[in-house]
Amino acid sequence: MIRALVFGVTGYTGLELVRLLSTHPEIFIVAGSSRTWAGKRASEALPFVNRAKDFPLRTLEDLLEDPQADIAFLALPHGESMAVIRPLLEAGLKVVDLSADLRLNDAEVYQDWYGPHKDPELIPRAVYGLPELYREEIRKADLVANPGCYPTSVILALVPLMKLSEVDTSCPVVDSKSGISGAGRGAKLNTSFCEAGESFKPYGVIRHRHIPEMEQELSKVAGKPVKVRFTPHLIPVSRGMVSTIHVRLIQPLSAVSIRELYIEHYRSEPFVKVLPAGKFPDTAFVRGSNQCHLAIEVDERTGWLIVMSAIDNLVKGASGAAVQNANLMTGLEESSGLSGLPLFP
Amino acid sequence: MIRALVFGVTGYTGLELVRLLSTHPEIFIVAGSSRTWAGKRASEALPFVNRAKDFPLRTLEDLLEDPQADIAFLALPHGESMAVIRPLLEAGLKVVDLSADLRLNDAEVYQDWYGPHKDPELIPRAVYGLPELYREEIRKADLVANPGCYPTSVILALVPLMKLSEVDTSCPVVDSKSGISGAGRGAKLNTSFCEAGESFKPYGVIRHRHIPEMEQELSKVAGKPVKVRFTPHLIPVSRGMVSTIHVRLIQPLSAVSIRELYIEHYRSEPFVKVLPAGKFPDTAFVRGSNQCHLAIEVDERTGWLIVMSAIDNLVKGASGAAVQNANLMTGLEESSGLSGLPLFP
Amino acid sequence: MIRALVFGVTGYTGLELVRLLSTHPEIFIVAGSSRTWAGKRASEALPFVNRAKDFPLRTLEDLLEDPQADIAFLALPHGESMAVIRPLLEAGLKVVDLSADLRLNDAEVYQDWYGPHKDPELIPRAVYGLPELYREEIRKADLVANPGCYPTSVILALVPLMKLSEVDTSCPVVDSKSGISGAGRGAKLNTSFCEAGESFKPYGVIRHRHIPEMEQELSKVAGKPVKVRFTPHLIPVSRGMVSTIHVRLIQPLSAVSIRELYIEHYRSEPFVKVLPAGKFPDTAFVRGSNQCHLAIEVDERTGWLIVMSAIDNLVKGASGAAVQNANLMTGLEESSGLSGLPLFP
Amino acid sequence: MIRALVFGVTGYTGLELVRLLSTHPEIFIVAGSSRTWAGKRASEALPFVNRAKDFPLRTLEDLLEDPQADIAFLALPHGESMAVIRPLLEAGLKVVDLSADLRLNDAEVYQDWYGPHKDPELIPRAVYGLPELYREEIRKADLVANPGCYPTSVILALVPLMKLSEVDTSCPVVDSKSGISGAGRGAKLNTSFCEAGESFKPYGVIRHRHIPEMEQELSKVAGKPVKVRFTPHLIPVSRGMVSTIHVRLIQPLSAVSIRELYIEHYRSEPFVKVLPAGKFPDTAFVRGSNQCHLAIEVDERTGWLIVMSAIDNLVKGASGAAVQNANLMTGLEESSGLSGLPLFP
Repeated sequence: MIRALVFGVTGYTGLELVRLLSTHPEIFIVAGSSRTWAGKRASEALPFVNRAKDFPLRTLEDLLEDPQADIAFLALPHGESMAVIRPLLEAGLKVVDLSADLRLNDAEVYQDWYGPHKDPELIPRAVYGLPELYREEIRKADLVANPGCYPTSVILALVPLMKLSEVDTSCPVVDSKSGISGAGRGAKLNTSFCEAGESFKPYGVIRHRHIPEMEQELSKVAGKPVKVRFTPHLIPVSRGMVSTIHVRLIQPLSAVSIRELYIEHYRSEPFVKVLPAGKFPDTAFVRGSNQCHLAIEVDERTGWLIVMSAIDNLVKGASGAAVQNANLMTGLEESSGLSGLPLFP
Repeated sequence: MIRALVFGVTGYTGLELVRLLSTHPEIFIVAGSSRTWAGKRASEALPFVNRAKDFPLRTLEDLLEDPQADIAFLALPHGESMAVIRPLLEAGLKVVDLSADLRLNDAEVYQDWYGPHKDPELIPRAVYGLPELYREEIRKADLVANPGCYPTSVILALVPLMKLSEVDTSCPVVDSKSGISGAGRGAKLNTSFCEAGESFKPYGVIRHRHIPEMEQELSKVAGKPVKVRFTPHLIPVSRGMVSTIHVRLIQPLSAVSIRELYIEHYRSEPFVKVLPAGKFPDTAFVRGSNQCHLAIEVDERTGWLIVMSAIDNLVKGASGAAVQNANLMTGLEESSGLSGLPLFP
Repeated sequence: MIRALVFGVTGYTGLELVRLLSTHPEIFIVAGSSRTWAGKRASEALPFVNRAKDFPLRTLEDLLEDPQADIAFLALPHGESMAVIRPLLEAGLKVVDLSADLRLNDAEVYQDWYGPHKDPELIPRAVYGLPELYREEIRKADLVANPGCYPTSVILALVPLMKLSEVDTSCPVVDSKSGISGAGRGAKLNTSFCEAGESFKPYGVIRHRHIPEMEQELSKVAGKPVKVRFTPHLIPVSRGMVSTIHVRLIQPLSAVSIRELYIEHYRSEPFVKVLPAGKFPDTAFVRGSNQCHLAIEVDERTGWLIVMSAIDNLVKGASGAAVQNANLMTGLEESSGLSGLPLFP
Repeated sequence: MIRALVFGVTGYTGLELVRLLSTHPEIFIVAGSSRTWAGKRASEALPFVNRAKDFPLRTLEDLLEDPQADIAFLALPHGESMAVIRPLLEAGLKVVDLSADLRLNDAEVYQDWYGPHKDPELIPRAVYGLPELYREEIRKADLVANPGCYPTSVILALVPLMKLSEVDTSCPVVDSKSGISGAGRGAKLNTSFCEAGESFKPYGVIRHRHIPEMEQELSKVAGKPVKVRFTPHLIPVSRGMVSTIHVRLIQPLSAVSIRELYIEHYRSEPFVKVLPAGKFPDTAFVRGSNQCHLAIEVDERTGWLIVMSAIDNLVKGASGAAVQNANLMTGLEESSGLSGLPLFP
């Protein structure tokens, strides 16, 4: 059995780790951190935690003092994560960091988008936790930077295209839509039921912090610089993320052949599914599961190729991916605890 | 391993059985029936079924012909279930019937509320599948009538009171609210997104088919006739059911003592949780789980006792209860495959 | 033309006054108060205000200094309203107070439920603003206490019954459900989209501040003390309120006759509609309108009479009623500016 | 007073005409057609129609026999509209057709996307009913083809750009999202609450019937052929439509200058509002109103210009535009009956 700590257990990604690990056959939570609930049991803070899987809640500082565990999940805000990683690694724990703190390879780029980095020497030690790209590196890592939700939905959709000569992948046009849990668990007027519930709107149209992460990874795959024209939107659902991506065709390409390419590319991936022609990704069909659904169409009339992806932003876009990484890092079966079907309806 | 058949696999209770059994360690689906999809694999009809747990879909008739399995779940409409039970029993299968066909002990009462019964001799053979009342009988049964969703939410809320002399339980006033999946998976205008989505409304105010079922079971527990004043409503959520139940006090009773009574009554139940004072049942905290949350308050000012319950109508109110019954019938651990936490948010 | 001030213009009842008055043929807003937006124009704070109906926003204090207007709407929190009423009356304005400050006739009862009253001498000067009960008094009043949303939905449903000898109206059992805008426009976790959106739950089960208001008015109509067993719930819709009310029958009574009684009682009311047999109130059919829909059923089997009502909590439950009162107070046609149909779907 | 007929009164665009005309000072409905409800009064079919504005429902054939009215609104399915236009025109009525039957100037293009046209000679007689493009022609027209919802949201967003040399408008990339009422009022599984409610998905990715309409009008404005790369999506709201449009920059262009261009272009339009920098269109702020909100951003980093628009698909995208057209055709003030603010929240 693998003993896990969850830092920041009462946020949405923390709660989702609790949910996923409650049925994990090998990894169980021994303690969690919570500023508000320190000193209580998880079942007191979260009415749905059942007694058999209960665990104590402590302050972050308490938890760091003597971290008796094998792995730590950091579901902390950007900027806070980097401060706790070093003591955990030194105590011999493996670490999955769900924040953005170690996703960007370049501390200056980090500074441009997030502010000054407190521990830039950690950066080269972290592996970018997208198993579909870095599975072997993750297996050997003791520190993994779990990807952002938008980057996951965009990178998985684009990877098979990036080396094709028939398409211009230098600047995909990406129109993404996220469920409201992506904004975190704070109380804000713009994510209140009355203001977000019968609403759909773009936000962060020119500048969103997930852009450098997408560009970094897509550039690596392409072997040349890639920019992303990215527009995020807010959907009135709790969970779910769809990215609709447009890439210009340089030469004619049939939908059948490109779909075949995707199927081949993802044939052995446990969590990526390429939909048959005429089916499109729907957040309802991945909700609560670690799946990523992809669809590809070619618009011959206008000369564009369209790739669409759907994930649950809290699962494959955050906590599910973190468990997938933890499975790899600890030598477990990659899909252990992650085979649940979506909650539909 | 226990081999299961699911009849009516593409309705909401059928789909929920597929979801729950996809992570069940012992019971797996060998085949399902579907009028529309007969001849296909489940993964073709349901885009979220993963390859590892795929199974063939057949017509109901095909499935009956040579039912190679240990147990059958009948997620069929009322009236259709009773026609397939006998051949299944004769082929040696255990049967969990999710329809109302065998819930009422009296064929005449059935006729009053549902129409003529086609096989009344089956009735005495079936055990009413509420483990909190009939656990031992269910263990020995080969035919279980899975309870209705409203009855489950009401009976679990009232059972501990029924023999108390301090309250008048002869006719509780029950105000229940159900998520829209309770109306089934057909295409109807009144359950369309635009008409049900920003709507809340009562329906079936005087006459709802779940009334005789509640009255039958509550009368048995009370040892005397009980009627129920029942008003159902439709909530704009997919899943979830709350019952708010009012019972008149005959003598003063403290909330503390009555809450203690409930805690004691349900102490060893794996799926019933009595909330602490000041907490109220919320569909969000049981969504997707097999839990029933209860809260009790006493209004001394007016002399009424209020019991509130929340369940997921598709889980504890249908398919989760069916799996719980199947576990008991096949000698498995009662909560096997049912320990998942709710999907929150 | 009637010049109006709106105090507290950026809360939900304030915004709804802006919406309703934007198409009112006689009353127009000359200024509003807003702590956050003082110094701006309404169209800067509220992107949907059109230029033709724009008005300046000021601090409450500024607005009180020289209130050049004919009528003031107070959409302020309880406790704040009572402090601004006297200067407005002294400046010759009529006042519609949407808070609870003057709804209760007895300052001690107010203290029990809300805290100490700062200006109890104002209380006898205010008329309770339910035109269906006090139309003539409102016409002559210069100070009106606009009713609470729950009381409106309950009182309108019960008034025709209160003097009937065939029913026991001493303590109706009232199960009410409100849309989330009823909780106001603050940012709170429990009304956030993710936590309230797929949720249904009771709250304030024993003690809700609208109870004394209902009991006061129902007791007056009955001519004897009436208590109310009241349970409020939160529905995942922005707007809408349904009350389901149970009253015990003392003697048999037919649904037809009692429905006839209601139709007769409300025959000349512009905003109360009694639905035909078999139709039930639906928040979707009153959303955005000043209508109250009522339905009545008799359950002979159990001996209870059920009355159901639906209103839009922000319109007939707040700002629409305030405009209705203002129309009466200023000698306009009662339904002026209030004849819009609901937004359906 | 202008007497109006509404054909197809119980669909969503028909219902919306009833709502808008209920507060119109000059146009009132004298009769409506409904297959299901012929022979009844509107208030019987639609519980929210108030007595003062009631009108009879007849079959389409009855209504055509002796159409005593000044104007007819056709809220009929594509293909049915064209069959009733000629008799109405011959009886001297003006006609606003909300279907697609007369939107395309070329009967062959119509055939490609919709099927054979039954009365192609009508086509040249109809004016495309977008007042922001064809105001003067509409004033003189007796037959107006009311635009589609997607085309309205896209054309209004792009018109000011189409002649600019700094941008490549030959094939805008358009990512649109529509509320579910856009799918009409039939009962379908994919628009049921349970399947559409917690879902977001693309549909009709390569081929949507609104494409030729957009291309026709944009090409006219540009004075050269324009294609549109169009992807529609379904949002879980009843009403609302957002289009996010990407156009490549050929030369640098500042957001400030282009925003100024839009403000100038739409300065005197009553229903188009250009939002200030940093504000983005939100369906919540146009819901129920005839407004179109626009925002423009320039992404210098990638060389794209982004235009975003929001409308209520049933108002500015259908019935509100129809009333706007009717006002122009009958010599009324253009915004008569259309000045209502959105229902927020």
